[in-house]
Amino acid sequence: MTDIAAALELVRTVPDFPEPGVLFRDLNPLFASAPAFRAVIDEMAARLPDDVDAVAAIEARGFLLGAPIAVARDVALVPIRKPGKLPVVADRVDYALEYGTAALELPAGVLPAGARVAVIDDVLATGGTVAGVRELVERAGATVSVVSVVLELAALSGRDRLPGCDIQALQVL
Amino acid sequence: MTDIAAALELVRTVPDFPEPGVLFRDLNPLFASAPAFRAVIDEMAARLPDDVDAVAAIEARGFLLGAPIAVARDVALVPIRKPGKLPVVADRVDYALEYGTAALELPAGVLPAGARVAVIDDVLATGGTVAGVRELVERAGATVSVVSVVLELAALSGRDRLPGCDIQALQVL
Repeated sequence: MTDIAAALELVRTVPDFPEPGVLFRDLNPLFASAPAFRAVIDEMAARLPDDVDAVAAIEARGFLLGAPIAVARDVALVPIRKPGKLPVVADRVDYALEYGTAALELPAGVLPAGARVAVIDDVLATGGTVAGVRELVERAGATVSVVSVVLELAALSGRDRLPGCDIQALQVL
Repeated sequence: MTDIAAALELVRTVPDFPEPGVLFRDLNPLFASAPAFRAVIDEMAARLPDDVDAVAAIEARGFLLGAPIAVARDVALVPIRKPGKLPVVADRVDYALEYGTAALELPAGVLPAGARVAVIDDVLATGGTVAGVRELVERAGATVSVVSVVLELAALSGRDRLPGCDIQALQVL
């Protein structure tokens, strides 16, 4: 068994959260295992294309993965925030997600035009959130070089909302 | 000028956010500078006591600092979450903060009794949030070994709400 496979076995599946019928993938036991978390960060960082020069980390669980990946790859860290958190907003996108609607904001003055961005989150589900982040990145004149997640939920067809995107997942469920 | 001093010069001060009269310290330009962010993470990680065996990272900005510090120190990462985010909750605390009230939750099954915890956030203001996290940690049978932040706002007297706590700040304003 690889380190990654052992790490992924720590993911806890919780039925009916946050809504009935949803199987929630809880990564907290993985985060709490130092060797498992390190293995996941090292692997996600190593798989990114060489030309990535910024990590866009999606609030909030994407922060836990994106920040150490940015450090490991020595590239800019750009947090993508929920509304009301940023004092200086460059742009905002509203989007549909697995359960409801939401919005995300890009901080002002931190994502240069031309940047090649790795979008990082814990789980790719319907792809609505990542598609929103892609819109923010592209409107800023930057490009999404890759989308990297721990888990991809194939049945929710997130890839279909991200045409032309390179998508990396440690595990497809 | 040290690397840390140069990194801290990137912090952007924004008046009247999130409320009139509040000077908000925006670390996004620091996060977006790979050398500055690395210098901050390395310094915060290096200063932690040797016996720390878990990082409690406070949602959401504390995630951006706590996750790479946990990786750098090879210790458990325990995200302290806002209500409604966790499928399995160990405990919850309600507390007053600089502008309003709030609550935080500890994930179930990830913080062992006896753990020696470093509480990580971006800014220590009134200390209400950190005092709440301390309560969660101590109720779980663990102890706060240290509180580590980038900025401490001395005028808000956060230390007074954290008696007996070792508090490390890269800069006191």
